[in-house]
Amino acid sequence: MKNYKIILCYEGTDFCGWQRQKTGRTIQGVVEAAVSLITKTKVVVHGAGRTDAGVHALAQAASFQARVRLDTQTFCRALNAVLPGDVRILSLEEVGSGFHARKSAKAKIYRYIIINDTTISPFLRRYALHIPYPLKFKAMRQAAGLFVRQADFSAFSSNKERKPVRTVFSSEIKKSRNKLIYTVEANGFLRYMVRSIVGTLIEVGRGKYPPEIIDEIFASKKRSLAGPTAPAHGLYLVEVRY
Amino acid sequence: MKNYKIILCYEGTDFCGWQRQKTGRTIQGVVEAAVSLITKTKVVVHGAGRTDAGVHALAQAASFQARVRLDTQTFCRALNAVLPGDVRILSLEEVGSGFHARKSAKAKIYRYIIINDTTISPFLRRYALHIPYPLKFKAMRQAAGLFVRQADFSAFSSNKERKPVRTVFSSEIKKSRNKLIYTVEANGFLRYMVRSIVGTLIEVGRGKYPPEIIDEIFASKKRSLAGPTAPAHGLYLVEVRY
Repeated sequence: MKNYKIILCYEGTDFCGWQRQKTGRTIQGVVEAAVSLITKTKVVVHGAGRTDAGVHALAQAASFQARVRLDTQTFCRALNAVLPGDVRILSLEEVGSGFHARKSAKAKIYRYIIINDTTISPFLRRYALHIPYPLKFKAMRQAAGLFVRQADFSAFSSNKERKPVRTVFSSEIKKSRNKLIYTVEANGFLRYMVRSIVGTLIEVGRGKYPPEIIDEIFASKKRSLAGPTAPAHGLYLVEVRY
Repeated sequence: MKNYKIILCYEGTDFCGWQRQKTGRTIQGVVEAAVSLITKTKVVVHGAGRTDAGVHALAQAASFQARVRLDTQTFCRALNAVLPGDVRILSLEEVGSGFHARKSAKAKIYRYIIINDTTISPFLRRYALHIPYPLKFKAMRQAAGLFVRQADFSAFSSNKERKPVRTVFSSEIKKSRNKLIYTVEANGFLRYMVRSIVGTLIEVGRGKYPPEIIDEIFASKKRSLAGPTAPAHGLYLVEVRY
């Protein structure tokens, strides 16, 4: 039995998220089907994180154990040959038996893209959130920096989670012409955490809240004080660090 | 009655091409519906060229006549507000009564994108043709240059056309890492002409034909000698010149 680590790229548009379901089309489902088909055994694939429906990944990590005679390059090609076009395996390697994509992960990086312009290109509409009204970038930048902390992130999650404390290592928003790019790295993320942060940054950007409100929202631990959950299609899982 | 010129950007994926049909969803159809809705009259929109099903446009030109009280900026915004997200009007201006998007066009520029690599990113699969086998770029470049001529392009069209003579002003293929970008400008294009040229360039790239065969194919005027019609999703109408 060998232990494998794969790096996956996928467009989330036509998936009901990462996690296997009985009926919906999921990334875990199609990857497990591909691995099972090639290895001719039933294989469970563990993702580093469970991306939600519609969320994209530039480099999701996953691991699985299987008995495989193929060399890694051939195995990787065979998997890509049977996978649908909206998921690609970027790399496949054999790793030590102790490696587990979720449990071994030290940090994850997510990115959120906003097009802030009167219109959005047809070619970007699945890949970025369109906001036509003006946004105060400086206020958003200031607010983004206030998420760098070890704290209870309950106010920025849609679920009551047992362990709501996370450490955000970096949280930064950049502007490039009409594009806003928010990038956040943490040791882990609660459900809807990035999208709740982005939703709050947008409220700050449109002037509904001052940037300083972030501290108050953290202190309150109330989801209702944060902004709405931003749509899934602007979000990318960019990297998993080990 | 005013005469308007619009520049359109669209993703061709979910359209049965430009030309209005009784049942299929077409760009002309949705644009005419939008203009008719805003102007409250039945309006016919003339496109500079009839892009086929699945073909994209970065800047298609079109013209129409209508009685409109709105200023051009408001009119443009109103149209984009009712158009579906896969079509955007990039600009709208009032033009002289003699202007007609198709009849006034002096030249058109098309582009075709090929990803020549073992895999193609999920984010590019609708926007470029994936070719996994090696291509001889120098031979393709040489062949591409041989299309610059005034000639009968019957061999590079799928229809018997009444006026098969066209003038290609430039025809060039460039390489940037794993991406091949073919750009062609002509005073007009026959149906499937760009895709037939690209299909032939691919045959040259994989070594089936030498570049010099282009001259022979032109002389023969036989469609059967040229390569297959390349798929629509790699093709873009880039510009219409007046």
